[in-house]
Amino acid sequence: MNISNATILQKFDLFQEQWKPQIIGELNGQQVKLAKLKGAFVWHSHEHEDEYFQVFKGTLYMEFRDRTEVLEAGDMIIVPKGVEHNPYTKADEEVWVLLFEPATTLHTGKVEHERTHNDQQWI
Amino acid sequence: MNISNATILQKFDLFQEQWKPQIIGELNGQQVKLAKLKGAFVWHSHEHEDEYFQVFKGTLYMEFRDRTEVLEAGDMIIVPKGVEHNPYTKADEEVWVLLFEPATTLHTGKVEHERTHNDQQWI
Repeated sequence: MNISNATILQKFDLFQEQWKPQIIGELNGQQVKLAKLKGAFVWHSHEHEDEYFQVFKGTLYMEFRDRTEVLEAGDMIIVPKGVEHNPYTKADEEVWVLLFEPATTLHTGKVEHERTHNDQQWI
Repeated sequence: MNISNATILQKFDLFQEQWKPQIIGELNGQQVKLAKLKGAFVWHSHEHEDEYFQVFKGTLYMEFRDRTEVLEAGDMIIVPKGVEHNPYTKADEEVWVLLFEPATTLHTGKVEHERTHNDQQWI
């Protein structure tokens, strides 16, 4: 495996698609991904995978069944396996996040949805 | 496992020790750690673990046997298992980094050194 390094904010300039995570690195079977989010996603959970989110731009709302966490740039959250969550943003704001999750993680979890992407896109 | 969330920069205010990573989260057998670095560390490698560094403050120099990468705030680097590396900073600048690595990773790798800490310190 090669050494990979990057200026994270510059990587965000390399793609426009929303809700479609792009891979920037891999380590120990986990992948580092970047995603641009805007609007509503879908309630889902991951059966076997914990998921790390770190916000780089904008405000991310992470809705759980009992509460909503509000995350600004520089904030992180870990959603444990099995916990239903529903990320969303303000209607008119694009939010940039870094994700850390196993290479096997499908971003909509067990939910098949029009937003589900199976392909592994590297930037 | 509980949901954990944090403002990362605020977490850096909770400790002063340099070269002693503090754990802020855990997922899929990996830990998210914060560390304050200043001056020279020690050449080392990790036999089985890849290691992710993300700089939050200052300039991190990651020396390899064939070159040195210079990392500023917002930059990341993944050092694959087995690759010898030697992180260092300017003599008078403290550098703040976020690390991602297996829970088993000893930060000096196979090298036993005065900087080696075995304890798992959570903040």
